[in-house]
Amino acid sequence: MEKIEGGGVLTAQGFRAGAARCGMKQAEGEPDVALVVSDEPAAAAGVFTTNRFAAAPVRWCRRRLPTEQARAVVVNAGNANACTGEQGRRDVRATAELVGELAGCAPEAVCIASTGIIGHPLPMDRLTDGVRAAWDNLTGQKSGADLAARAIMTTDTRPKACAVASETGGISFRVGGMAKGAGMIAPHMATMLCVITTDVAIPAELLRETVREVADCTFNRVTVDGDTSTNDSALVLAGGASGAAAAPGAGLGRFTEALEAVMADLSARIARDGEGATKLLEVRVGGARSPADAERAARAVGESQLVKCAVYGGDPNWGRIVCALGYSGAQVEPEATSVRIGDVCVFEQGKPTGRNATEQMAAERVVFEIDLGQGRATATVLSCDLTEEYVRINAEYHT
Amino acid sequence: MEKIEGGGVLTAQGFRAGAARCGMKQAEGEPDVALVVSDEPAAAAGVFTTNRFAAAPVRWCRRRLPTEQARAVVVNAGNANACTGEQGRRDVRATAELVGELAGCAPEAVCIASTGIIGHPLPMDRLTDGVRAAWDNLTGQKSGADLAARAIMTTDTRPKACAVASETGGISFRVGGMAKGAGMIAPHMATMLCVITTDVAIPAELLRETVREVADCTFNRVTVDGDTSTNDSALVLAGGASGAAAAPGAGLGRFTEALEAVMADLSARIARDGEGATKLLEVRVGGARSPADAERAARAVGESQLVKCAVYGGDPNWGRIVCALGYSGAQVEPEATSVRIGDVCVFEQGKPTGRNATEQMAAERVVFEIDLGQGRATATVLSCDLTEEYVRINAEYHT
Repeated sequence: MEKIEGGGVLTAQGFRAGAARCGMKQAEGEPDVALVVSDEPAAAAGVFTTNRFAAAPVRWCRRRLPTEQARAVVVNAGNANACTGEQGRRDVRATAELVGELAGCAPEAVCIASTGIIGHPLPMDRLTDGVRAAWDNLTGQKSGADLAARAIMTTDTRPKACAVASETGGISFRVGGMAKGAGMIAPHMATMLCVITTDVAIPAELLRETVREVADCTFNRVTVDGDTSTNDSALVLAGGASGAAAAPGAGLGRFTEALEAVMADLSARIARDGEGATKLLEVRVGGARSPADAERAARAVGESQLVKCAVYGGDPNWGRIVCALGYSGAQVEPEATSVRIGDVCVFEQGKPTGRNATEQMAAERVVFEIDLGQGRATATVLSCDLTEEYVRINAEYHT
Repeated sequence: MEKIEGGGVLTAQGFRAGAARCGMKQAEGEPDVALVVSDEPAAAAGVFTTNRFAAAPVRWCRRRLPTEQARAVVVNAGNANACTGEQGRRDVRATAELVGELAGCAPEAVCIASTGIIGHPLPMDRLTDGVRAAWDNLTGQKSGADLAARAIMTTDTRPKACAVASETGGISFRVGGMAKGAGMIAPHMATMLCVITTDVAIPAELLRETVREVADCTFNRVTVDGDTSTNDSALVLAGGASGAAAAPGAGLGRFTEALEAVMADLSARIARDGEGATKLLEVRVGGARSPADAERAARAVGESQLVKCAVYGGDPNWGRIVCALGYSGAQVEPEATSVRIGDVCVFEQGKPTGRNATEQMAAERVVFEIDLGQGRATATVLSCDLTEEYVRINAEYHT
């Protein structure tokens, strides 16, 4: 497997992308509607938010995936189409019908994802114009992928994309994608918006299982602020243009590995670019009694406001780390617990070691390594620091 | 029942209080060790943090309460005596022995509570001097209560105290107390530090039950940052000096009501004075399927970073409120949910009403009234806004 510099949603063969501005996003001149189109019907699967107020586009996709017939993904940024009732459902269908008409496929072959403000109806006239304009500039060139990755951003400070190449049975294939993150990020069963394409051939049902499994240990382990949004969607389209097949066995193994590389990379980009964030925080928990316990412990530390403030301030305040472990609900015993910040052990057998980890806290990627001493299960959660800028962004954002 | 202006931990008869500075707290010249002493052996009970890394003083009290023989409470601020291993346990015992010697009682009759930095051993020489000095200025006058309430503060911006008077069987009695809050506040089964005294007579076992029950719907419903500390302790001493008895029936009812008034008042003071807070947020949930569901829903909204930022910014962003309801784990249905901000209904039957609640968001006490439409259970959670100042306080606090 190899990483492809500058790769993204068009690295796999058989896809085109385009984007346009329809004016839903405030940032002047920025594109806010993106299209990814598969030349041939593709297998598609997704994972979605567990939020009970799931947005209309999430409900649309959930009902139609997995499918062997996917042809397009439409993403708009600036308006979430969440909590919009019957109108929201009609607008999703109208969008799918429009794209279906352009692509010559059934509306059911169109996946939709939205992000932005909750509770406002979509401006359908403008969205229609935007979708047509994005269709007109569809391209298989890298420029299309770059524009699409920019179009799906909201408070993200940079586009997020990556791709890898691998091979199975002597045939090379590619997996690549784009994502947006920033705020309201604490995915459960899915995350933020993400579109991944691959030119491997894989049945839709098997794709769904694989996507779920990989999302569970990548996207579902990211937290920026503990708020699980109404719109989290990760969509994967597999067109098969490479001729490589992800059949159960070696082929599936290679594909899973490649998909995990892409999802893990996008996850780290999302955590690192959390709203207002200046640092990435990686919380690795080992020695847990069960995988669920390991995740509970890692999540409690990664979500603790006080821990995140300490990371921002560069303070090796391990007291806040063990405090979070203590209320996490995981089985912990002070005497069995140890905590390392980077390569420095600061807490061992229920007591501070007295060693200084100020330098380790100053890194751009801060790593906590926690051993609970209760078993063998492990989990890693990615987070970021909590800054004045996060508060400013979210206090000044007005509905 | 009547509220007593300026009341506190010495409003009930039969108690004295004192405080002194031993230098554990950074704030120049501020007292940091407080004593509350009962003239006679008192019934005592408490509720404590559920954090698995509970501090040494919490473990000490848990093992000894309830008791009929309590004589004193020692509180120090600036050092939590948490994660201090065997040394921490020895220091708690030595402190109890010292106060026992001064008060002429067994060490077991002394309750201890600490707050401050985690993981540093107590400076026992200085603490010993401080306890002796506090003992020397014990008084039954209001000045003693005021000094004690100041001594237990850490990042609190003001002392928190209140008291009420009530009567049963023609005999009047009083309940009053002091508390500290500010950060690392998300009590479960107890909260922050709080000492309450009463001159009612009540058996220790019954006192324990009553304290638990009342704490559950007051202190346990406060959240500043979602972090449950290692040191939460709420201690109640009942000396009986008034001659009134809280016997099962009317007497207990009156006492419970008075205790609830004191605990609810202190809870609101803690939320209002959360680190960096400028506003109190009250989240009232009704129409829940069960009390647990009501609490889940109210807590998710009260703990949401995004909701708290919106309160700070004065933005009636109900999208963040319903989003939090959606991931709370409570049974919710968009179509059955309604949300009021103050007296303005902003969301009803799964759709925005379009009404503006900007004025209601500008209040110093912002109230969200949420009806889930699933049943009849209710819960209220108190919280506060999330501000740049919270981040500054907790990023700049160095270990």
